[in-house]
Amino acid sequence: MVSEITNDFDELIVGIGSAQCSHTMENPFTAGERVLMIARVLDPFVQTRGVKLYIIPIEDMNRNSIWVSHIESMVPPFDVVYTNNPLSKRLFEESGYSVRSLPLYNRGLYSGTKIRELIVGGDDWRSLVPDEAMVVIDEVEGVKRLREIAMKDE
Amino acid sequence: MVSEITNDFDELIVGIGSAQCSHTMENPFTAGERVLMIARVLDPFVQTRGVKLYIIPIEDMNRNSIWVSHIESMVPPFDVVYTNNPLSKRLFEESGYSVRSLPLYNRGLYSGTKIRELIVGGDDWRSLVPDEAMVVIDEVEGVKRLREIAMKDE
Amino acid sequence: MVSEITNDFDELIVGIGSAQCSHTMENPFTAGERVLMIARVLDPFVQTRGVKLYIIPIEDMNRNSIWVSHIESMVPPFDVVYTNNPLSKRLFEESGYSVRSLPLYNRGLYSGTKIRELIVGGDDWRSLVPDEAMVVIDEVEGVKRLREIAMKDE
Amino acid sequence: MVSEITNDFDELIVGIGSAQCSHTMENPFTAGERVLMIARVLDPFVQTRGVKLYIIPIEDMNRNSIWVSHIESMVPPFDVVYTNNPLSKRLFEESGYSVRSLPLYNRGLYSGTKIRELIVGGDDWRSLVPDEAMVVIDEVEGVKRLREIAMKDE
Amino acid sequence: MVSEITNDFDELIVGIGSAQCSHTMENPFTAGERVLMIARVLDPFVQTRGVKLYIIPIEDMNRNSIWVSHIESMVPPFDVVYTNNPLSKRLFEESGYSVRSLPLYNRGLYSGTKIRELIVGGDDWRSLVPDEAMVVIDEVEGVKRLREIAMKDE
Amino acid sequence: MVSEITNDFDELIVGIGSAQCSHTMENPFTAGERVLMIARVLDPFVQTRGVKLYIIPIEDMNRNSIWVSHIESMVPPFDVVYTNNPLSKRLFEESGYSVRSLPLYNRGLYSGTKIRELIVGGDDWRSLVPDEAMVVIDEVEGVKRLREIAMKDE
Repeated sequence: MVSEITNDFDELIVGIGSAQCSHTMENPFTAGERVLMIARVLDPFVQTRGVKLYIIPIEDMNRNSIWVSHIESMVPPFDVVYTNNPLSKRLFEESGYSVRSLPLYNRGLYSGTKIRELIVGGDDWRSLVPDEAMVVIDEVEGVKRLREIAMKDE
Repeated sequence: MVSEITNDFDELIVGIGSAQCSHTMENPFTAGERVLMIARVLDPFVQTRGVKLYIIPIEDMNRNSIWVSHIESMVPPFDVVYTNNPLSKRLFEESGYSVRSLPLYNRGLYSGTKIRELIVGGDDWRSLVPDEAMVVIDEVEGVKRLREIAMKDE
Repeated sequence: MVSEITNDFDELIVGIGSAQCSHTMENPFTAGERVLMIARVLDPFVQTRGVKLYIIPIEDMNRNSIWVSHIESMVPPFDVVYTNNPLSKRLFEESGYSVRSLPLYNRGLYSGTKIRELIVGGDDWRSLVPDEAMVVIDEVEGVKRLREIAMKDE
Repeated sequence: MVSEITNDFDELIVGIGSAQCSHTMENPFTAGERVLMIARVLDPFVQTRGVKLYIIPIEDMNRNSIWVSHIESMVPPFDVVYTNNPLSKRLFEESGYSVRSLPLYNRGLYSGTKIRELIVGGDDWRSLVPDEAMVVIDEVEGVKRLREIAMKDE
Repeated sequence: MVSEITNDFDELIVGIGSAQCSHTMENPFTAGERVLMIARVLDPFVQTRGVKLYIIPIEDMNRNSIWVSHIESMVPPFDVVYTNNPLSKRLFEESGYSVRSLPLYNRGLYSGTKIRELIVGGDDWRSLVPDEAMVVIDEVEGVKRLREIAMKDE
Repeated sequence: MVSEITNDFDELIVGIGSAQCSHTMENPFTAGERVLMIARVLDPFVQTRGVKLYIIPIEDMNRNSIWVSHIESMVPPFDVVYTNNPLSKRLFEESGYSVRSLPLYNRGLYSGTKIRELIVGGDDWRSLVPDEAMVVIDEVEGVKRLREIAMKDE
């Protein structure tokens, strides 16, 4: 995905959404841990291409009407937005941005929800995650964390 | 300052405080604009040293008791904190971090407050700011912004 | 409904709840757009009756214990509350207000949820909405907005 | 002021800023009380001119970067902004709005700060306030409220 | 439960979670009402044992990463945490606390959710609640409150 | 003070204001530390008199109009309010409470602000504070904390 985007642009901003969340099934990792995973995964790639990369945590505002202004304030100025989320697309277009769909990838396979379920279930997930992300997950004891979070109140 | 720090460490996290602020005398620039300035200023330096740099906006929580936990959640794991602010020093030490003073520099001269006053007053400020930051300030029409913010209600 | 209420009162305050919401299936329109719709729909009616009308956006506080105080602070002083919502009824009665049920109307037909579904499904909704509201919905491209919001993440 | 504005426009939105504040020296009255004062003062005027008037409480967000989006979401769509405040002027202009200065009036005399001090000091303030506002202030026992707020902790 | 805990400790802090909630099916009572119930139920027990008891309302922060720091700031210093909730257990353990399971009790029978349903359904609930709590529930007209909250929008 | 109040009442609620604050000159101690100090100071007194004591942290809402409702939700039901603060007096009276002045004491001497300044300045403060509070302050290294907080940014 990043490979395709950086054919057209030499600066890339990755927004880490719901940055205030962690230790939930949907967002088991802190924003900082997610920054670290993405930085390590993209680092070799960035080195080769000479792309300037910004990875920025974005806290939820839970107000769609100010969402774009909030993001604009937290990241360096940008021209084009890549998203497949219809609401994000809508909000950025209302603010005058050019919005593009993210290049295709196998979402059924590389789905965060699916991978988190595999981890909780004790199934193989390591083949679906880049090595650098796997290392970070292991460093923060992510498997144990996810399994404990997944437990119901006794 | 960064030069001295990176003698000891090969990863550096720069936190952009009061990230929710902009268009004030104290914080005229958005967090994103501040990210951009710092990234451009440190980029050549980082290239030479091979340092891994993270620049992370941190929104204020206005609760000292959770401040360290808030920062821990937003940035990659870290070991040592550099700060000259007595309250920050205190809070990080209470949480068990090793805190070091920032290497000395000419604070009377390179003071943000002072430089902002020079900009508002129409005096020379360009010699006190790295070229890359100056370029960003000019790109976002920072001089005009600061002068308008500084005006009192008519 | 307003017709019946204004038989008894010559001042009417309409609170726009969840004012901070927009671009969701439940609240596709901003508070300001909702103010505009209601103002235009009630305007001819208000002119005829000489009723004084206040339309006030009310942001959610998500704390039932302070809900009534919050509303009291945002709207002019009032004596009687009209609501069919059991929780609102309860909260206002605990604060000593006289609460009345809203006059009956065909809720199965004139249901916001139902009408929004008709819009998304491409079915006829225009006959269920006052002309003045329809005009506002068209002015803000409400049909397109609702259909895009209704789309799932691809 | 309103007289001059309505020479050019037949719709007028009055934003009540800091709507969450009350019982302070700066904002002794609730947003709802302020809505009532302004509605009563402007009512005869509005009747004569046939102007459509919206009076909308706006809660502070304390984030300049999202301020304009916040207002846009709370009020009906608008084209021109009247303000003498340099920061508001700046923020609306950055968002592409046409901003005009408010027509001149005797600010030294008709100053809210000054009038509140006169009330607290027991001096004559009634000649400086429109009759309809004075009636509302008396209805909510505003003089007593202001004097009590002004007292220091014993 | 408290009996078993106080075999090992002579100070006990009871945290009232979701303190900002009331008038919902999940939390029908205010934090203050919950403080009162627990204080009255534990009072005779505390008198006998000479245990020092603190009952502290804790507002939700909705940020797991700062949850432990938030609690630490609101209650007197503590050494051991009793909880059966896997997420709480995880969060306190990450912060270095010793966490113990609550002594067993008949949760199928003494379940808050179950008791609230019995109250709403008009079934017998009084035998499942300590007398002192029952008195408080009756003092605040808790049965009527719960039944009204449980009603759907008409 | 408590001695006089408990001549008339056998239940006493002490609200810990600005509960979210700590590590500031105005509120150097966490709400939990303040709970502990007050509990220990009043404990012998409470034992003798048989008074029921509730010590409840209250987070600021920064909205005067909902302040009383907020407090009502956090503490057990109460009838009379003791305060010397004119704003608190006003707000509780507007809500229909009976408000009494706190019995007189030597405020020039037993002033929190004054005592904190003595601590920072290295002067004698121990004679102005109850022994039990002094013990808590020493347990949490309060003197060191206050002096560090008082330091200016280097």
